[in-house]
Amino acid sequence: MGGMDLVWSTYKESLDEVEEQILKGLDSKIDLVNDIATYILNSGGKRIRPLFLMISSELTGNTVNKEHLLLGAGLIEYIHTATLLHDDVLDNADVRRGNATARVKWGNQPSILVGDYLYTLAVCQAVTIENHEVNHLLSSTCRSMTEGETLQFYHNKDFNLGEETYFKIVEYKTASLISASCRLGAIIAKGSEETKGALSSYGRHIGIAFQVADDTLDYTADGRRLGKSLGEDLKGGKITLPLIHLLQHCKEEERKEVERLIGEPGLQEEDLKQVTALMRNYGSINYAIKKAQDFVDLAKEDLSCFKDSSHRQSLITMADYVVERDH
Amino acid sequence: MGGMDLVWSTYKESLDEVEEQILKGLDSKIDLVNDIATYILNSGGKRIRPLFLMISSELTGNTVNKEHLLLGAGLIEYIHTATLLHDDVLDNADVRRGNATARVKWGNQPSILVGDYLYTLAVCQAVTIENHEVNHLLSSTCRSMTEGETLQFYHNKDFNLGEETYFKIVEYKTASLISASCRLGAIIAKGSEETKGALSSYGRHIGIAFQVADDTLDYTADGRRLGKSLGEDLKGGKITLPLIHLLQHCKEEERKEVERLIGEPGLQEEDLKQVTALMRNYGSINYAIKKAQDFVDLAKEDLSCFKDSSHRQSLITMADYVVERDH
Repeated sequence: MGGMDLVWSTYKESLDEVEEQILKGLDSKIDLVNDIATYILNSGGKRIRPLFLMISSELTGNTVNKEHLLLGAGLIEYIHTATLLHDDVLDNADVRRGNATARVKWGNQPSILVGDYLYTLAVCQAVTIENHEVNHLLSSTCRSMTEGETLQFYHNKDFNLGEETYFKIVEYKTASLISASCRLGAIIAKGSEETKGALSSYGRHIGIAFQVADDTLDYTADGRRLGKSLGEDLKGGKITLPLIHLLQHCKEEERKEVERLIGEPGLQEEDLKQVTALMRNYGSINYAIKKAQDFVDLAKEDLSCFKDSSHRQSLITMADYVVERDH
Repeated sequence: MGGMDLVWSTYKESLDEVEEQILKGLDSKIDLVNDIATYILNSGGKRIRPLFLMISSELTGNTVNKEHLLLGAGLIEYIHTATLLHDDVLDNADVRRGNATARVKWGNQPSILVGDYLYTLAVCQAVTIENHEVNHLLSSTCRSMTEGETLQFYHNKDFNLGEETYFKIVEYKTASLISASCRLGAIIAKGSEETKGALSSYGRHIGIAFQVADDTLDYTADGRRLGKSLGEDLKGGKITLPLIHLLQHCKEEERKEVERLIGEPGLQEEDLKQVTALMRNYGSINYAIKKAQDFVDLAKEDLSCFKDSSHRQSLITMADYVVERDH
């Protein structure tokens, strides 16, 4: 056993405790709230953020308040899940990880409400740690995530979206929570400023790499192998890195044709094939994969301040993992 | 000048500072976010919650950190506004206080996102006060509000909804934030436990009275005079106190007819007239008004532990005001 399998098995006991905490922490007096929250929390997420948090805390080498650590791991997953519930409403998404979305099962209204609930529950649990640094980190992270989502919405079907704004969206909506997971682990374990800074930066780079890789999978056969239906971003008018590259490099008449297909709900399989063929021609897919890999390399460099250890090795393995697989 | 006019003018300077804080506190780097937030924040709210907060802080008699007080007043209004944005999406509402709702002007998606943003902004600002009591209060309040909204949704068109659950919904979704406004004023002014307890209870009773009165206006000519379109709750399937009373007291065949109209989007003026006539016959309107008045009286009793002062008198005036007018 090696690679990610080894990482999963190394932290299995902690992850099982997180799992217990996640379900135990749901305490609404309203059954419907717990039902919907449980459904989406059990819909196949791998708890990658809690894993980042726990390994980060281990890396400090300090003994750690176990209760706070589990609380932190659980509430990070609540925040993540709250964004999934709202995202599915915003995107009119019917399927997530092969299952019907909560909005299909219960409707948009309870999805919005339970998203709000999970977010407020996370804040309720965070403040019980009674650590101002934790409060500042989590509140600013949630604000960034919301701003990232809004920026993405604002630039929907914006054919002139440049890389700079794209990376800003990615950093805000995705990387901020992964970065916060790493930093929170270090804060709870009372790590040094240097440790917290290095782990924040690692998480930020990992988060960007992950989102760029995920955006690329929307256009590749690998995405289909992982159970994704391809072309969802194109259909939804989301301008991501491979598309930005293509629009900037293709011929004027090709660009016109691609623009016609962006945000087209009735997008056909042939249309998608046409776009992905162009992307291959112009090297757009490879360009995006290379970019994701660059951020993985930056993330690994962030770990250079730590002496070698099995925990450091686990974070290196996870850096490679996020661009290789679907989560 | 007397009554509420005197109260408004007494605290005008503070309210102007709150107004400035509310607009200054909006700091998104995304113009659309600030635009939508400003639009809804300027849509005619009277800042009744900030007013409760400020008078409550004055009532302690202590000198108070002005910066924290304004921050608290502003963020309470952000939380309130966040719920309005989400409520309008949940209710498919087109008009609020005579203006087009944000969802009509910009769509459901930005309304959800900016609601999320205002809520996260409020938390970001709350944690800068660095007072754990503030954090516990606000996080538990937001959780209660979300649970109240969900409970209301869950009991939509529930013809057997009883008073107990109705009052629980009202307490959670509405009274909790008014109660928190009063308590927050007292916390920031370092009031005693007794003061904080009395003001929390006052706010809770006021909040219940306000919501019951508001629910009653949905069925009365007074509601129309205040620019409301009547019967919205009936049309939307919301079971409120006058309707609960009617369903429990009318004849079987009348009940069947009323039930047929609950949650009927095509509800006609004559249908509504039929229901309000029944409510008058069975004393349902008067029953609800009397209940609201009972809570006003309880709120005034909560103030008995304070010696007489102009601030105490202002809170008494506001107690009468909330059941008399629309907000």
